Amino acid sequence: MTVMEPSASRLELQTGILDPCARVLSRRLSDMQGMFADEKARLELQARQGDSLVYAVYVAEIPETASHLPHSTTVIQPGRVGDEFFMTKGHFHAVRDRAEVYLGLAGQGCMLTQTDEGETRLFDMRPGTLVYVPPFWAHRTINTGSEPFAFLCVWPGDAGHDYGTIETRGFAKILVARGSKAVLVDNPRYG
Amino acid sequence: MTVMEPSASRLELQTGILDPCARVLSRRLSDMQGMFADEKARLELQARQGDSLVYAVYVAEIPETASHLPHSTTVIQPGRVGDEFFMTKGHFHAVRDRAEVYLGLAGQGCMLTQTDEGETRLFDMRPGTLVYVPPFWAHRTINTGSEPFAFLCVWPGDAGHDYGTIETRGFAKILVARGSKAVLVDNPRYG
Repeated sequence: MTVMEPSASRLELQTGILDPCARVLSRRLSDMQGMFADEKARLELQARQGDSLVYAVYVAEIPETASHLPHSTTVIQPGRVGDEFFMTKGHFHAVRDRAEVYLGLAGQGCMLTQTDEGETRLFDMRPGTLVYVPPFWAHRTINTGSEPFAFLCVWPGDAGHDYGTIETRGFAKILVARGSKAVLVDNPRYG
Repeated sequence: MTVMEPSASRLELQTGILDPCARVLSRRLSDMQGMFADEKARLELQARQGDSLVYAVYVAEIPETASHLPHSTTVIQPGRVGDEFFMTKGHFHAVRDRAEVYLGLAGQGCMLTQTDEGETRLFDMRPGTLVYVPPFWAHRTINTGSEPFAFLCVWPGDAGHDYGTIETRGFAKILVARGSKAVLVDNPRYG
């Protein structure tokens, strides 16, 4: 039997950069079509400042099979589309009955979780905040600060990703700026 | 269906303390009988300085079932038994075909991995070193520094722990101090 070799990589705790990694996924404003409540504001922002980076994901080279623990780091840039903070697309696991572990590394933000029935829970994340996303909860991270918000994620290799459900329905709530505060409000586009 | 609630805990990145956690396991010199190559030195150390702490494990309250990702932090104290550095007992997973993710948080040490056939691989760990222990590798962490060595571990809920194999056979190699260096040498007691 051939066994996979153990390996070490460098996670820069101050920036969230993972090196080496298999690939870096860049999500720009144009990749986030339909993800924010105010699509017109997204288009205007893109016209004004170009197709800026919203977040980058540093994906470790780990098989996506049941025996393994794939992991990645994510760095969300500070910014807003209208009054809604920059965030990840968010996803359920394709196999709903699979958990995920998040560890905040730099910056400040939130983790928004949601069941298939639209129940939501929100958690503040700072460096050292460990969020446990149990089976059955969709999850999205949001940068509420003025610096890049970085964190580590670890998930079971057989979890898979279901982005489609969130792309279609959205989250029931969105996180918006009200003065200097981040406030969770109903998503007018939630289906 | 009742789903488990998401939760946030505080991981002190400078100390490795996880709060809240389900329990703190303390491994003292008396718990480490037979784990170091020089058992006489262990007994002498215990007689001299009492039943000191070797390491503590902060275990998160997560079910040990396939859907979940149990995790813990470990803090290994600096010290030696004879010339062998303080370390964890080390284990295989009961289900051999299961991985584990380690992230160094504070201090300095090493990760020693080993197959069932006695092949070993050693990795330096510093804050930000992420070690991927693939399926089939036993793993032990070792404090080679003068400060507590702290790290986070995440494992699949259905992995289980096999401590017995290492308790019986040991690792093929041990990490010992030679002057100011940590050197990997054959374990005279490896069976």
